[in-house]
Amino acid sequence: MTSLPPCPSFVLISLMRHLCDTLPRKHDLPPARKSGHHRKRIMPAVIVDSAIYVDGKRAVEPGSLEEIYDACRSREGIAWIGLYKPTAEEFESVAEEFELHPLAVEDALDAHQRPKLERYGETLFVVLRPARYVDESETVEFGETHVFVGKSFVITVRHSEVPDLSEVRQRLEEDPELLRRGPEAILHAIMDQVVDDYGPVADGLENDIQEIESQVFGGSADVSRRVYELSREVIQFQRAADPLNEVLGALMRGEIIDVDSEVGRYLRDVQDHAQHVSDRLSGYRELLQSILSVNLTLVSLSQNEQVKKISAWAAILFAPTLIGTVYGMNFDHMPELHWLLGYPFALMLMVLTSVLLYFVFKRRGWL
Amino acid sequence: MTSLPPCPSFVLISLMRHLCDTLPRKHDLPPARKSGHHRKRIMPAVIVDSAIYVDGKRAVEPGSLEEIYDACRSREGIAWIGLYKPTAEEFESVAEEFELHPLAVEDALDAHQRPKLERYGETLFVVLRPARYVDESETVEFGETHVFVGKSFVITVRHSEVPDLSEVRQRLEEDPELLRRGPEAILHAIMDQVVDDYGPVADGLENDIQEIESQVFGGSADVSRRVYELSREVIQFQRAADPLNEVLGALMRGEIIDVDSEVGRYLRDVQDHAQHVSDRLSGYRELLQSILSVNLTLVSLSQNEQVKKISAWAAILFAPTLIGTVYGMNFDHMPELHWLLGYPFALMLMVLTSVLLYFVFKRRGWL
Amino acid sequence: MTSLPPCPSFVLISLMRHLCDTLPRKHDLPPARKSGHHRKRIMPAVIVDSAIYVDGKRAVEPGSLEEIYDACRSREGIAWIGLYKPTAEEFESVAEEFELHPLAVEDALDAHQRPKLERYGETLFVVLRPARYVDESETVEFGETHVFVGKSFVITVRHSEVPDLSEVRQRLEEDPELLRRGPEAILHAIMDQVVDDYGPVADGLENDIQEIESQVFGGSADVSRRVYELSREVIQFQRAADPLNEVLGALMRGEIIDVDSEVGRYLRDVQDHAQHVSDRLSGYRELLQSILSVNLTLVSLSQNEQVKKISAWAAILFAPTLIGTVYGMNFDHMPELHWLLGYPFALMLMVLTSVLLYFVFKRRGWL
Amino acid sequence: MTSLPPCPSFVLISLMRHLCDTLPRKHDLPPARKSGHHRKRIMPAVIVDSAIYVDGKRAVEPGSLEEIYDACRSREGIAWIGLYKPTAEEFESVAEEFELHPLAVEDALDAHQRPKLERYGETLFVVLRPARYVDESETVEFGETHVFVGKSFVITVRHSEVPDLSEVRQRLEEDPELLRRGPEAILHAIMDQVVDDYGPVADGLENDIQEIESQVFGGSADVSRRVYELSREVIQFQRAADPLNEVLGALMRGEIIDVDSEVGRYLRDVQDHAQHVSDRLSGYRELLQSILSVNLTLVSLSQNEQVKKISAWAAILFAPTLIGTVYGMNFDHMPELHWLLGYPFALMLMVLTSVLLYFVFKRRGWL
Amino acid sequence: MTSLPPCPSFVLISLMRHLCDTLPRKHDLPPARKSGHHRKRIMPAVIVDSAIYVDGKRAVEPGSLEEIYDACRSREGIAWIGLYKPTAEEFESVAEEFELHPLAVEDALDAHQRPKLERYGETLFVVLRPARYVDESETVEFGETHVFVGKSFVITVRHSEVPDLSEVRQRLEEDPELLRRGPEAILHAIMDQVVDDYGPVADGLENDIQEIESQVFGGSADVSRRVYELSREVIQFQRAADPLNEVLGALMRGEIIDVDSEVGRYLRDVQDHAQHVSDRLSGYRELLQSILSVNLTLVSLSQNEQVKKISAWAAILFAPTLIGTVYGMNFDHMPELHWLLGYPFALMLMVLTSVLLYFVFKRRGWL
Ligand SMILES: [Mg+2]
Ligand SMILES: [Mg+2]
Ligand SMILES: [Mg+2]
Ligand SMILES: [Mg+2]
Ligand SMILES: [Mg+2]
Ligand SMILES: [Mg+2]
Ligand SMILES: [Mg+2]
Ligand SMILES: [Mg+2]
Ligand SMILES: [Mg+2]
Ligand SMILES: [Mg+2]
Ligand SMILES: [Mg+2]
Ligand SMILES: [Mg+2]
Ligand SMILES: [Mg+2]
Ligand SMILES: [Mg+2]
Ligand SMILES: [Mg+2]
Ligand SMILES: [Mg+2]
Ligand SMILES: [Mg+2]
Ligand SMILES: [Mg+2]
Ligand SMILES: [Mg+2]
Ligand SMILES: [Mg+2]
Ligand SMILES: [Mg+2]
Ligand SMILES: [Mg+2]
Ligand SMILES: [Mg+2]
Ligand SMILES: [Mg+2]
Ligand SMILES: [Mg+2]
Ligand SMILES: [Mg+2]
Ligand SMILES: [Mg+2]
Ligand SMILES: [Mg+2]
Ligand SMILES: [Mg+2]
Ligand SMILES: [Mg+2]
Ligand SMILES: [Mg+2]
Repeated sequence: MTSLPPCPSFVLISLMRHLCDTLPRKHDLPPARKSGHHRKRIMPAVIVDSAIYVDGKRAVEPGSLEEIYDACRSREGIAWIGLYKPTAEEFESVAEEFELHPLAVEDALDAHQRPKLERYGETLFVVLRPARYVDESETVEFGETHVFVGKSFVITVRHSEVPDLSEVRQRLEEDPELLRRGPEAILHAIMDQVVDDYGPVADGLENDIQEIESQVFGGSADVSRRVYELSREVIQFQRAADPLNEVLGALMRGEIIDVDSEVGRYLRDVQDHAQHVSDRLSGYRELLQSILSVNLTLVSLSQNEQVKKISAWAAILFAPTLIGTVYGMNFDHMPELHWLLGYPFALMLMVLTSVLLYFVFKRRGWL
Repeated sequence: MTSLPPCPSFVLISLMRHLCDTLPRKHDLPPARKSGHHRKRIMPAVIVDSAIYVDGKRAVEPGSLEEIYDACRSREGIAWIGLYKPTAEEFESVAEEFELHPLAVEDALDAHQRPKLERYGETLFVVLRPARYVDESETVEFGETHVFVGKSFVITVRHSEVPDLSEVRQRLEEDPELLRRGPEAILHAIMDQVVDDYGPVADGLENDIQEIESQVFGGSADVSRRVYELSREVIQFQRAADPLNEVLGALMRGEIIDVDSEVGRYLRDVQDHAQHVSDRLSGYRELLQSILSVNLTLVSLSQNEQVKKISAWAAILFAPTLIGTVYGMNFDHMPELHWLLGYPFALMLMVLTSVLLYFVFKRRGWL
Repeated sequence: MTSLPPCPSFVLISLMRHLCDTLPRKHDLPPARKSGHHRKRIMPAVIVDSAIYVDGKRAVEPGSLEEIYDACRSREGIAWIGLYKPTAEEFESVAEEFELHPLAVEDALDAHQRPKLERYGETLFVVLRPARYVDESETVEFGETHVFVGKSFVITVRHSEVPDLSEVRQRLEEDPELLRRGPEAILHAIMDQVVDDYGPVADGLENDIQEIESQVFGGSADVSRRVYELSREVIQFQRAADPLNEVLGALMRGEIIDVDSEVGRYLRDVQDHAQHVSDRLSGYRELLQSILSVNLTLVSLSQNEQVKKISAWAAILFAPTLIGTVYGMNFDHMPELHWLLGYPFALMLMVLTSVLLYFVFKRRGWL
Repeated sequence: MTSLPPCPSFVLISLMRHLCDTLPRKHDLPPARKSGHHRKRIMPAVIVDSAIYVDGKRAVEPGSLEEIYDACRSREGIAWIGLYKPTAEEFESVAEEFELHPLAVEDALDAHQRPKLERYGETLFVVLRPARYVDESETVEFGETHVFVGKSFVITVRHSEVPDLSEVRQRLEEDPELLRRGPEAILHAIMDQVVDDYGPVADGLENDIQEIESQVFGGSADVSRRVYELSREVIQFQRAADPLNEVLGALMRGEIIDVDSEVGRYLRDVQDHAQHVSDRLSGYRELLQSILSVNLTLVSLSQNEQVKKISAWAAILFAPTLIGTVYGMNFDHMPELHWLLGYPFALMLMVLTSVLLYFVFKRRGWL
Repeated sequence: MTSLPPCPSFVLISLMRHLCDTLPRKHDLPPARKSGHHRKRIMPAVIVDSAIYVDGKRAVEPGSLEEIYDACRSREGIAWIGLYKPTAEEFESVAEEFELHPLAVEDALDAHQRPKLERYGETLFVVLRPARYVDESETVEFGETHVFVGKSFVITVRHSEVPDLSEVRQRLEEDPELLRRGPEAILHAIMDQVVDDYGPVADGLENDIQEIESQVFGGSADVSRRVYELSREVIQFQRAADPLNEVLGALMRGEIIDVDSEVGRYLRDVQDHAQHVSDRLSGYRELLQSILSVNLTLVSLSQNEQVKKISAWAAILFAPTLIGTVYGMNFDHMPELHWLLGYPFALMLMVLTSVLLYFVFKRRGWL
């Protein structure tokens, strides 16, 4: 081991990958922390999965951070360490070993960053904002994932359930050809997953908008809250998705690092899909604004209808009152009052007037 | 045949071009699939038309994909293969033969792309979003067409009825001069067709807007739904047409491939027409927003009118009630009550008051 | 003649310039067509005026297209041919003689282009959208004019009454100095005329806006239609005027052709005036949007006023009814009923209550 | 005199500077024209002040245009000629002497230009739009000033009272150091004055907006007109101030003329202040739009309040009517009718019901 | 001392740093001015803290401005002078000693600048607009701070309580490594503090928006004023935060001064956080506009509900009146009138009708 070059080489850890990373996502706790006491001996709870890939294949699975570092120093290959919501203390040793820049470390620990790409020396730092549509509550959940990409290592720091990085890892491990292209291929795979995950979220929002359209044009005016909340989600989503265009563009144009031309094509594909999502979102924004305007008009229109209807009924009710008032007058000489059928006649008159008015209003569309 | 250079040369297939591509477009099924069992023997249902053009003229019509490939390998010329909604399996062999990039293949099979232009090695991949105005339903139908342009081949993948590529092919075949300029001339002809088809769609939308204007100013306030749906169509149309400006610009500026200067002029003409459509669409968006505002104001105004009218009628009805109430009082000394014509007098008073009020309101414009 | 260089030299035609081009502009027919049968012998109806200018002075007036071409070929100078709505057949011979590019010819025959500048080989093709404010109908009429500028010829194709090119021609002929600078000077003069004509149109729109302001703040709420139509005109006008900035900028920067620095200054002056119009128009758009908002608020406010007024009158009418109802009760012991002046007392009470209410409402500003 | 170099040297005129340029600004007539007949002998009414500055100090005060020209030709120094609304005839001789470009002269005589900077040969032509807040009418008055800057002369053409160029001149004359830097220093001083004058105008508009806010939230809904007129003023002001950013940027970047680096810093300071005004104005636009929206909502809200109040009063009035109607019924057996205190009982019932309703509505916030 | 190089070296002053700069921030007076008469002897009230840092450590604390200058001239190191709202006279001597440009001095004394960065010779001048969220009044308070950065000095001029520069100074003094990097490190630390302070302000605004959302959707329509005032604060905040992006970008790109690459990374971090704040603010603007629209719709909807409710109650009240009117008629033959239980029957009928109507309206959701 000592004869090998000391710099970048890693040992595989991740004994319990399938247990941790693929657990059902219902609970918000990090899977690693749920996996019990007997695991903590081997590696800190915060490490979800780690491995060293040599020539595109999983080579070593180290059991603790120290084993990872040892493996890294003694072997050639790419180390991919997957962390989940590490505390400052937990992250410190990783940062020290891989000489991560303190500014990037500060950002990685504070999960409230905008999507971005930064280069500190030889290490890239990428912030991604994954999203997930929660069907039960019809809301969008936004997460955050940070990726450090060095010459021979990738460190992923998840602050949310999404994206499913174990799936990404599995897909990459099945394609050694791709893994062999180096850390950039891993970065691509992660970004691709995040952007692919945007698709169903946009579909969910589109579906919500269609439901709102049905509501609005189906006569249910009380959609303001839903429109507002949807707008807020779209705005948040735009803040997650729109910066990716620039991030990927900078990567592709080789401004940040030299990118292999084939990886460049794959990045362009991700950018294209991210752009597609951005386009859809800006369309949704416009539609939601139109819905708000349309709804206001429909509310006003329905008030007009209402006033007509109410006025018609008022007239129908009031007309017999006028007749009753007439026959309540105290004139000495009012022949109808002395008719034998005067009272039924008056009642008939009242009913007739009302019925007549009813049909008049009906024909005019007031009722 | 074997002595010929193996690279780009193709064999003509498309035995039933006029049967398939020019069938009536009422049914949404791909025409090829409708043409029956006896056709499947010669070429897969998905192939609408294929031919190899040598020196600007249709040279070979191969009967199956294999015949196409053979012809391609053995002869010089340009192969133009027309596919309609191929499945992944059906498209696989084409992709392999022409070494299409997997990312482009993925896009070509998933018909939900934004209009774009990408270059993978020597092959261009273009996504177009044709449109069609359906007169019966007064709606716009958006399609999708993908074009692969290589040194010696053009592969078109239609996912919708429009554009009528058989028409494009026919027009090109009638102009060998143009066809001789190579695959870019075919690409131009397709894009020109797509953009020319936009014209009638924009006309249809303009006509819809004029109808809505007539409705709104003709007193029919219930146009909100139509305005909303039109806005949605315009937004979708903008997403189809606006990116073409950039796509064509990149082509023309020679950023992607070297373009013959005459073809460049033709592309600029298409860009100019696409820009014209974009300009019109952004004007429609503004008009539709103004119509929404105007309609809301008119709804409010009509409510004002309504309230006036209703109030006037209420007064007309109520005034005689007041008179009736007065003569319903039980005072001992009310001279009118004892008049012989007291009752007719009161009725006349009621009628007169109402008539008077009617004319007062009429003159004031409340009725 | 044969000893002269054959290339660019033209013969004067335009025998009836003052008859045709300066005819009253009330009728929408092309002036040339109205000038009768005896003219058709000499030159096609579609030619409004044509001349060849040598050394800044009108040299030859050819009588037919063939004479023009002969003159062009045999003499040096600048030919300026003025056409009015030529048909495809009529334009064909011109296009052939001057080798106009088919794409430009297609555009020139289809009068629905956006303002633009294109270069085909040595020939510039410019599309202009002149405008005219029609005082009678208070509307804006948009026209279209195409200009081909070659090394030694200018062909103008008018599709509308405006601009008055005969005026431009006359002014240029009075300034041989300017004409001597070549075809670009003629192009400048035409563009200058078009942009100068925009001024009165913008004035007309400004005047319309001021009238609408008076209406809105003068209490007349029914301006929605006018505002809407004005908005549409401003949008159309922007589509005519805004692209000129770019067109003139490209010309001035010498991107298209080398422009004499003095002509450049004159083009910059035109650009400056076009920009001024654009600025005014975008201001009008904002004002019209504000007027729509303001008008909606005023309509709502006037409804509030109305409801107050109507409610006040309802109370004034209803109060005596309550009194009448009280004295219509059948209690055995109601002293007022037996007073001699009970009835007048009740009537006075009714009147007094109403008058009191009237003044209360008056003081509170409800009436 | 003849031995001096003939090129740029000027003679001082301006005998009555303090009389003319510093007169009270109440009347809109040009001060020079008001100063009487005895002045016209020495210099045309249109000349407000003129002087030739040699080595930073006022050297010659010529009495007429001819004396100015003579002085210019015979002495070195910088001539600063101040004109006020000259007619075409009056300006002709100046334009000829200093070889001003006809396009700039045309602009200088027509006071409807957008702020801009143009270079004609060695001469700069600058259009400025000064502004002034008129406290009495609470309106903004926009003026126009043109400046020609040559190698050795500055010609200012004012078309409005503002800016106070005599103040600028005085300040410069007190700082010979600055004047010695040449015509650019004078240009800077004028632009600085114009931009400094924008400050109080923006303050006036801000004050107006605060008053409107107080009105709107103080219950006075009738602010639409004021908001609208303020919006129009802000739009006009933006058209005056926003182009200065570009004008000053072009000057500073040395695109137009070489600018001394210190003068560059001063120009940047003016640009900074102009930008500050622009920022404030765009903020005001947004605030005014919000106020319009808010006002509309408040108008609707106040209608809701009103309808509640009116309905409550209607119920209070109507309840006793119902009681009265009950006791107006003619049943044989109605015990209350025969009570001695039946009538007072009924009246009390009416009053009690009304009072009860009053308090119910009061508690519910309807009254 | 005299043998040392005379140029940049400073003496420490700031005897009372912890007394002055860390005083509670409740009172708006500058802390230095509150610290009493015995202090004025040593240094002008306007100086909050001053020190000279040699090799990253606080070296000298001069007692007066003169001592500062002496120290500066005689020793190497970085002087950091902290001033609080100096008057023109107070600032004059500082400006003279450090050769500050008069334009920057003018700006530094007038606390109404936009955030910017300017370079005058070797000295940078930076304007910052710190902000603070005042919990008691739920408002945002904007301050202003100016920073002069020379080769060997930093002068900070605070015009507001925020930012807490004593905290910045303390943090820097605890990190001599950083201080050793020179004046740019101090500039970074100040900008970082200002931008870090923006975070809680944005949080406060976000919290306000959430409260408004609860109000609006909780039925309280009277949020217009709060929305408006919040919009104004967001606009002001945008004017404070948005220009920082450009300021920091210019610094980082090395356009203004050469920046050490590590300091560059720190500046980029500040820029990133400033951009994050800008993004949040523009999201808030959009949300506030949506809330205004939504609120208007909800106000209209609540009017519809109200009108329904009121109309229902009117019908409930009016129906018995109709019955009463019927039995108030004076017909000779009305059997019910003579029934023994006629009166209770009528009353029951009235109550029944009303109850029936009540339930009908209840079921229809009108009540
Ligand atoms: Mg964020
Ligand atoms: Mg939702
Ligand atoms: Mg993907
Ligand atoms: Mg994928
Ligand atoms: Mg749903
Ligand atoms: Mg793709
Ligand atoms: Mg439709
Ligand atoms: Mg075309
Ligand atoms: Mg065509
Ligand atoms: Mg139709
Ligand atoms: Mg789009
Ligand atoms: Mg064309
Ligand atoms: Mg609106
Ligand atoms: Mg057009
Ligand atoms: Mg009009
Ligand atoms: Mg002009
Ligand atoms: Mg002109
Ligand atoms: Mg008019
Ligand atoms: Mg001009
Ligand atoms: Mg005002
Ligand atoms: Mg200034
Ligand atoms: Mg100043
Ligand atoms: Mg005031
Ligand atoms: Mg300044
Ligand atoms: Mg400011
Ligand atoms: Mg607040
Ligand atoms: Mg920070
Ligand atoms: Mg920090
Ligand atoms: Mg709070
Ligand atoms: Mg950070
Ligand atoms: Mg927007």
